[in-house]
Amino acid sequence: MIDLLPPQLPPMPGQILARGVCRHLLSHGFVTVEELVPAPGLRVDVMALGPKGEVWIIECKSGRADYMTDRKWQGYLDWADRFFWAVDADFPTDLLPEGTGLILADGYDAEILRMAPETRLAGARRKAVLQTFARHAAARLQALRDPGLRLGGRLPV
Amino acid sequence: MIDLLPPQLPPMPGQILARGVCRHLLSHGFVTVEELVPAPGLRVDVMALGPKGEVWIIECKSGRADYMTDRKWQGYLDWADRFFWAVDADFPTDLLPEGTGLILADGYDAEILRMAPETRLAGARRKAVLQTFARHAAARLQALRDPGLRLGGRLPV
Repeated sequence: MIDLLPPQLPPMPGQILARGVCRHLLSHGFVTVEELVPAPGLRVDVMALGPKGEVWIIECKSGRADYMTDRKWQGYLDWADRFFWAVDADFPTDLLPEGTGLILADGYDAEILRMAPETRLAGARRKAVLQTFARHAAARLQALRDPGLRLGGRLPV
Repeated sequence: MIDLLPPQLPPMPGQILARGVCRHLLSHGFVTVEELVPAPGLRVDVMALGPKGEVWIIECKSGRADYMTDRKWQGYLDWADRFFWAVDADFPTDLLPEGTGLILADGYDAEILRMAPETRLAGARRKAVLQTFARHAAARLQALRDPGLRLGGRLPV
């Protein structure tokens, strides 16, 4: 199940970074969704879909504490071809593990500082991820284009 | 290329039917997008993606004239597992060709009166359609969730 209409709260620092990340990725031809749930218990900040079907996951970290308390990120590696951190200019990037990509972001734009290594998804997993991405995006879009929509606020996916 | 931010005009009669169609399909677990371009020169009113990856196309017709001037609908058959017409209660349904599905709709809901026969997409075509659907939905969603987004108003897909 995903939230059809997530509550409208002021953006958190990580969500502001996500906006800049999504803008930048669009300039590379990648479309994006936020807060996607690839599997129960996991929720990625940004999932991006490239022009050739590439799947990237980007976790946005507002600071050291936000990073240090994240115990789930390794679980995201299985759901994308590449995995990136997105941080602002004040973030202590020495903390970040080897073998991950790095994006410098603010609320308005971003820049890929270090490309993540590629670990390509297997075919069946890729198909499932693409379907999850499509359903997430379409459900959120429908909720925005049809404010009169009611289905108990949740959509089975 | 798809429009990133289509112009906001008053809804046409067919678009009002599309809203009811999309609401109803959601109750069957189908997510939907509107005005999707599967290939150059084609633009479908509604494309729906089912819980098992089913792809349906629904063309919404506001009346006899709208139907009689449609010279493209047979071109849509190659892009979906099932093809439906959606019409309102006043539409002369005797006009509609054999071998297509029929949905009765208004702006608030809809009902499937006749299930369309299934002609399953081949694997490569299905993959391409799913990718197009995902990119369309995510691009439109991003334009709505980030009104400050600017990329010349168009997105390469």
